[in-house]
Amino acid sequence: MSQTVTDLEVHDIRFPTSEQLDGSDAMNPDPDYSAAYVVLRTGHAGSGAEGHGFCFTIGRGNEVMAAAIEALRPYVVGRPAPRTAADLGELYRELTHDSQLRWLGPEKGVMHMAVGAVVNAAWDLAAAGAGKPVWQFLAGMTPEELVSLVDFRYLSDALTPEDALAILRAAEPGRAERTELLLAQGYPAYTTSPGWLGYEDDKLVRLSKEAVADGFGQIKLKVGADLGDDVRRMSLAREAVGPDIRIAVDANQRWDVADAVEWMNALAPFDPHWIEEPTSPDDVLGHAAVRAGQPVKVATGEHVANRVVFKQLLQAGAVDFVQIDAARVAGVNENLAILLLAAKYGVPVCPHAGGVGLCELVQHLSMFDYVAVSGTWEDRVIEYVDHLHEHFATPTVIENGRYMAPLAPGFSARMLPESMAEHRYPEGPVWQARRTTEENAR
Amino acid sequence: MSQTVTDLEVHDIRFPTSEQLDGSDAMNPDPDYSAAYVVLRTGHAGSGAEGHGFCFTIGRGNEVMAAAIEALRPYVVGRPAPRTAADLGELYRELTHDSQLRWLGPEKGVMHMAVGAVVNAAWDLAAAGAGKPVWQFLAGMTPEELVSLVDFRYLSDALTPEDALAILRAAEPGRAERTELLLAQGYPAYTTSPGWLGYEDDKLVRLSKEAVADGFGQIKLKVGADLGDDVRRMSLAREAVGPDIRIAVDANQRWDVADAVEWMNALAPFDPHWIEEPTSPDDVLGHAAVRAGQPVKVATGEHVANRVVFKQLLQAGAVDFVQIDAARVAGVNENLAILLLAAKYGVPVCPHAGGVGLCELVQHLSMFDYVAVSGTWEDRVIEYVDHLHEHFATPTVIENGRYMAPLAPGFSARMLPESMAEHRYPEGPVWQARRTTEENAR
Repeated sequence: MSQTVTDLEVHDIRFPTSEQLDGSDAMNPDPDYSAAYVVLRTGHAGSGAEGHGFCFTIGRGNEVMAAAIEALRPYVVGRPAPRTAADLGELYRELTHDSQLRWLGPEKGVMHMAVGAVVNAAWDLAAAGAGKPVWQFLAGMTPEELVSLVDFRYLSDALTPEDALAILRAAEPGRAERTELLLAQGYPAYTTSPGWLGYEDDKLVRLSKEAVADGFGQIKLKVGADLGDDVRRMSLAREAVGPDIRIAVDANQRWDVADAVEWMNALAPFDPHWIEEPTSPDDVLGHAAVRAGQPVKVATGEHVANRVVFKQLLQAGAVDFVQIDAARVAGVNENLAILLLAAKYGVPVCPHAGGVGLCELVQHLSMFDYVAVSGTWEDRVIEYVDHLHEHFATPTVIENGRYMAPLAPGFSARMLPESMAEHRYPEGPVWQARRTTEENAR
Repeated sequence: MSQTVTDLEVHDIRFPTSEQLDGSDAMNPDPDYSAAYVVLRTGHAGSGAEGHGFCFTIGRGNEVMAAAIEALRPYVVGRPAPRTAADLGELYRELTHDSQLRWLGPEKGVMHMAVGAVVNAAWDLAAAGAGKPVWQFLAGMTPEELVSLVDFRYLSDALTPEDALAILRAAEPGRAERTELLLAQGYPAYTTSPGWLGYEDDKLVRLSKEAVADGFGQIKLKVGADLGDDVRRMSLAREAVGPDIRIAVDANQRWDVADAVEWMNALAPFDPHWIEEPTSPDDVLGHAAVRAGQPVKVATGEHVANRVVFKQLLQAGAVDFVQIDAARVAGVNENLAILLLAAKYGVPVCPHAGGVGLCELVQHLSMFDYVAVSGTWEDRVIEYVDHLHEHFATPTVIENGRYMAPLAPGFSARMLPESMAEHRYPEGPVWQARRTTEENAR
């Protein structure tokens, strides 16, 4: 019997992470990691099924994201609860193609991220209903079902449905074997925890060594504020981890093209694995120029607005690594398009994660990619940041530098009710206490 | 004595234009032209000065835009009322570079358009305070002041401050002469009123002939839903206006690259002046491929998110005409960057207008460009659509197919208080009446 979506709840949840300078980088000095959080319900609270999703923000403006999710209520409440690929494709297309809401993007920024939150909540609902984690729910679909999830509009000069079908069919025979390998070994991770820009040198060195001891083969440093500082920090990190550990660097969009070229030529002697977000995420041609102008590989994607920009990054040969984000584009469906584009162009996908809940979500997409799309984890790593996992019911499990495959049904990103209550903005006790402290300090 | 901004008011104003199919096109079948409207006040209502600005939307989601404007309140209220180029540059930079709000774009979509509304309201306030229309207020600034208004971040591989200064200095000697010409003759316009996709053939023919009789040298048709229909409509329009009137066509992002090439090769025998928005506004490389694949010139810009994408459209040789929009990017400041980029690449700017209030705003930018940037109106036309002007205190004046230069101080886009009261959503009488009609029809 078909269930109906009876409610869409929106919650403004914020963590005061700026107090510790966790997450500080050249463009984001004081983020308060936040989630505009959505719960879809079937039946009454406590009795029916639930689907959870969210947009990730870094504080101010989280209420604007919440308003955007709220604007999607009429498209979701009252419809049959999505269960199949056909249902999930239809919901995604309806939300992205509403002509009036589309004007607010199109397919970018606040409104698009809100669609992503709702689409991901629908995937949580559907996968949980099927009793499977999202990666396995996806990997259990036929190539034809998977292709039906994708919106090929604006992609056909780079990827057709036939191309997608061929990629997915080629990966079909090895699905079972790779699923077993994944369950046994987990998926490779790297860690950004040592390298936040606000950390002192000795903390950077200590955390870099700890990361290697914990089994990570790759770490990442934030760069881009001051070249002298970056040369010193990169040199310290390289000394700390030795020549065999990969060190990626991340400029968080700080530079123009010429700055990026100059800076990376200066850092190149320390063998950086990639330079991430050297410039504007909208600048396809700029990324291509950065890639051509210096020897370090180029990565980007966490702020790339949609599949059309990813398509061009690949067409222009502008990136060596595609960094999908689970909550920036329109959810699982659009990320599937991006995984297929990357597979078509033979470019490895190394997801962005961190923030709050992004690791929990995006692991499913890389694992699905391994099992059913690219069929490989070579040159691929999922970012890992060790913040805020304790707020989730089924947090990521990292063992020896690898993400262990989640086994719980759904999308692994259901926040604990007590964490939500504590961090509700502006009325939750964490924020009330902070206001009291600030008032007393005046 | 310096005034302070004491209030920021936000209004959700919507016009039920979908009832008439005015504004219908291949992607937007039923727009309700709307404004998320902002008023900055200095001193008390009724006594102090005001600055008005807005985001344009086509209905649903206008409340999300309003929430985004509201999120900017703390950056505006309490600061000195902007009066000079330095003030207006500082406000623009502060609003676009707030690190937490920037995450919601960056510089695109809902949050960016909200910044544009507030920046434009600040320009209205400052120009009105100086007793000048915005085009003349701008054209009275020195090249150095104008350069200080621009954010060159991500532009320096295409346009440096030195480049901008050289362009502005080269245009300086002719400013007075061109101002006189503009005041005497007005600025060339074209009209889209005949060509909405929802209009019957005989209405299209009648309105096309009327446009020519009214003195317009260019009209525009919406295309993209059905090739057979478009060939018929284009043929009828060409027959109606004769060979000497330019007919632009507009696909409103309906096509993939191959569709655009096929369609425009089929329409080419009717000599279209340009094809507008053939594909996704994000697809720089797609536009370049469309331009290379068929003989009709390419125009785009009304949905282009920011100066970085415009930069690439010019770098890639993807467009023959740059179509700025007054309310899509971050206001006058970012549009100044785009005008300078277009001047650097020698590409004419033909603004998008229509909607509600967009003609009123954007005329100032083209007139300023004529006087102080490109120094020419050759190959340049501002779009004109004859809808909803009656709701403004100083509506556009069109004579013999040209925009007459606005003389009233400010940005010409202050909506009449009674129009705002009538069309307030959801509580205004127009919307109450519509709900009653709908309920009675059930």
